[in-house]
Amino acid sequence: MGETVALSEKSPSEIDAFLQTQRTAYDRLVTQGLKLDLTRGKPSAAQLDLSNELLRLPQGFTAADGTDVRNYGGLKGLPELREIFAELLWVDPEQLVAGGNSSLTMMKDCLVDLLLHGGVDSERPWSQEEKVTFVCPVPGYDRHFTLLESLGIEMVTVPMYDDGPDADAVAALVKDDPSIKGMWIVPTYANPAGSVCSQDVAARLASMPTAAPDFKIFWDNAYAFHHLTEDEAKSADIVKLASAAGHPHRPLEFASTSKITFAGAGVAFLAASPENIAWYVKHLGTGSIGPDKVNHLRHVQLFKTADGVREHMRRHRDIIAPKFAEVQRVLTERLGTQEVATWNDPAGGYFVNLDVVEGTASRVVELAKAAGVALTPAGASYPYGKDPKDTNIRLAPTMPPVEEVTAAMEAVATCVLLAAAEKYATV
Amino acid sequence: MGETVALSEKSPSEIDAFLQTQRTAYDRLVTQGLKLDLTRGKPSAAQLDLSNELLRLPQGFTAADGTDVRNYGGLKGLPELREIFAELLWVDPEQLVAGGNSSLTMMKDCLVDLLLHGGVDSERPWSQEEKVTFVCPVPGYDRHFTLLESLGIEMVTVPMYDDGPDADAVAALVKDDPSIKGMWIVPTYANPAGSVCSQDVAARLASMPTAAPDFKIFWDNAYAFHHLTEDEAKSADIVKLASAAGHPHRPLEFASTSKITFAGAGVAFLAASPENIAWYVKHLGTGSIGPDKVNHLRHVQLFKTADGVREHMRRHRDIIAPKFAEVQRVLTERLGTQEVATWNDPAGGYFVNLDVVEGTASRVVELAKAAGVALTPAGASYPYGKDPKDTNIRLAPTMPPVEEVTAAMEAVATCVLLAAAEKYATV
Repeated sequence: MGETVALSEKSPSEIDAFLQTQRTAYDRLVTQGLKLDLTRGKPSAAQLDLSNELLRLPQGFTAADGTDVRNYGGLKGLPELREIFAELLWVDPEQLVAGGNSSLTMMKDCLVDLLLHGGVDSERPWSQEEKVTFVCPVPGYDRHFTLLESLGIEMVTVPMYDDGPDADAVAALVKDDPSIKGMWIVPTYANPAGSVCSQDVAARLASMPTAAPDFKIFWDNAYAFHHLTEDEAKSADIVKLASAAGHPHRPLEFASTSKITFAGAGVAFLAASPENIAWYVKHLGTGSIGPDKVNHLRHVQLFKTADGVREHMRRHRDIIAPKFAEVQRVLTERLGTQEVATWNDPAGGYFVNLDVVEGTASRVVELAKAAGVALTPAGASYPYGKDPKDTNIRLAPTMPPVEEVTAAMEAVATCVLLAAAEKYATV
Repeated sequence: MGETVALSEKSPSEIDAFLQTQRTAYDRLVTQGLKLDLTRGKPSAAQLDLSNELLRLPQGFTAADGTDVRNYGGLKGLPELREIFAELLWVDPEQLVAGGNSSLTMMKDCLVDLLLHGGVDSERPWSQEEKVTFVCPVPGYDRHFTLLESLGIEMVTVPMYDDGPDADAVAALVKDDPSIKGMWIVPTYANPAGSVCSQDVAARLASMPTAAPDFKIFWDNAYAFHHLTEDEAKSADIVKLASAAGHPHRPLEFASTSKITFAGAGVAFLAASPENIAWYVKHLGTGSIGPDKVNHLRHVQLFKTADGVREHMRRHRDIIAPKFAEVQRVLTERLGTQEVATWNDPAGGYFVNLDVVEGTASRVVELAKAAGVALTPAGASYPYGKDPKDTNIRLAPTMPPVEEVTAAMEAVATCVLLAAAEKYATV
């Protein structure tokens, strides 16, 4: 077809013809009976295979300090595992807890503890405040928002830029309103925007005056080591930045091996000030006699060192970078000249952020579903599932084999074009 | 020395002589420089060895339904593991969740969910009630009490008898007071009393009228399969009893493999009504993408069937029954005729409950500590750590080798006798 004129600049009859073309293409797509899924950021079987040695580990069951890892105890996690990840996250091992299989659980635990008990710098438990609000950069991670909603915490949004959240907007919100108690951020290769929070933005978030004395940055560094190129982004060191700015208890940094080893059987980490760690462990201890240290030892023996983790991540990159490249190729070839969509080309993480013609994201997802391609629900990257402009679609290409990524993206492109044509045809 | 007269019936001069004898014995004990520990109910290395096959499992990583257990998902836990434990706990697999490595964590999660959201039969979240109180049979499990205390839940005690909690006392408390929202019970081989809740007592707890419409029995069946004799006690089936009595949502039953496989790396379970399970999973899902299914599959492959679990428990019995027998032997030989202590001879579980002369339990623990024998703090089996009569001491003989159990129990007997002599000498 070879259009080179943007869809919005075509004449009504050209748009009508275009709409017919897209309908035909879509009808053909539906007859293919696809069954593809780009919904969730899950590692593929080939990625999981990289860690299959875990299935035969650990060798022995004795920790470096003589602890029998099979038995109870050790709330903070296995010291030798904490050493490896403390090096990767630039904290002292004493500032790091290694826990169970989910950093999301640690985030929830922290929120529940803040609600029921208050933090180290709180005047009272957050549940005794009239209102608690979090700043949510958008687009963001749907589970962050669902978690806040389930706990009755309100949400206010700020834009996510290429260098992180809009620091001016955040600073203006938190300056005078003591009910604003915290914020989310996925600082490195953000979900889904792919952006990396710059040193400068992080420093501003770490140092900005907040009306709440116990303001918390939930720094979900889920993709800290998940590079897609050889130009490996360095996460800002929020723990040290906040400490240097006189707000040592502001950040709670989360990380995990969920997308390093086994998504369901990895190890989660919390890094924070020593006081925050003591606070967390104290409350953790009322409901736990210690994490799964056998799994901790497995991970120590798999990685051996921090460099072992870095090397392991390069093997992930080799598997998934071609899938991300395929997303770029199809989007560029099919939508590059139409001006019906913009998207990012992330240097890491698990997602591609696709923005379609305003008001058509839900329609694209609906069309794709009818054609057998599951996409994350439109709006999922916004609090309460409501994307005010209905433009945002999160694409997660890691899980399917590359040929399925191709097929799914071809389908997505067809749906984006049809939805855009429908929209312009009715204007 | 062969005393046959009870200490309390001796003359003052006989008691003085007895006190001198015990002081000498205690001084000799201290010079031995022991370093022994009877504090916590931890399995011994030999018991943990029974499950060492777990270190080489699983074979493969695919569940019966084709699920890749390495990846995310499956909030309720691996179906084939739930089938095995559903059979053991007499519930439908749909009524059972398999979780992480700690049933204590599940208990805390349930309490937090009740506080923040209310249960399926609650009028409002418990945190919105003026006061929430739990009935606590005593002696009981210290971590249950600490957990309630940390959540601001008040405690009222009832006696624990040989057939379970004093059901009359419980019924009288819960009948008129809507602030009494729940109760703890370790129904089988109770911690530390060793008693087994009878079918009759369980039926009364399941059916008693409660002022609170959402009264919950936290049925912590931690020792359901942990028999010390061939006469294996059957736990009362609280889930069915409550359902039959028209209170299906009253019980929340907890169990785990912590004292079956690896204490720190086992699997915890929650059994309850389908509505309670749906409620639990809904709240669980805000902070989890699924449990460690690799560990679930390990456990399936280790046990294979419910009978596999039962056989496995007999191997535990062979290891620990001689330790419990040794506790009985030393206590009987050293204290049997003195009337300075009573104790139980449990048919299962992890503890021996020792009651010493009123007002001397703290002194016994103190003397033992000075002689190098760590005992659980006196009062630990009571809410707020306060045993009103200061008589109760919990002995945990599973962890040390049998020769250390002997030495520790000889020391305990010496301390019990000295503390009693001190007490009578000052009367």
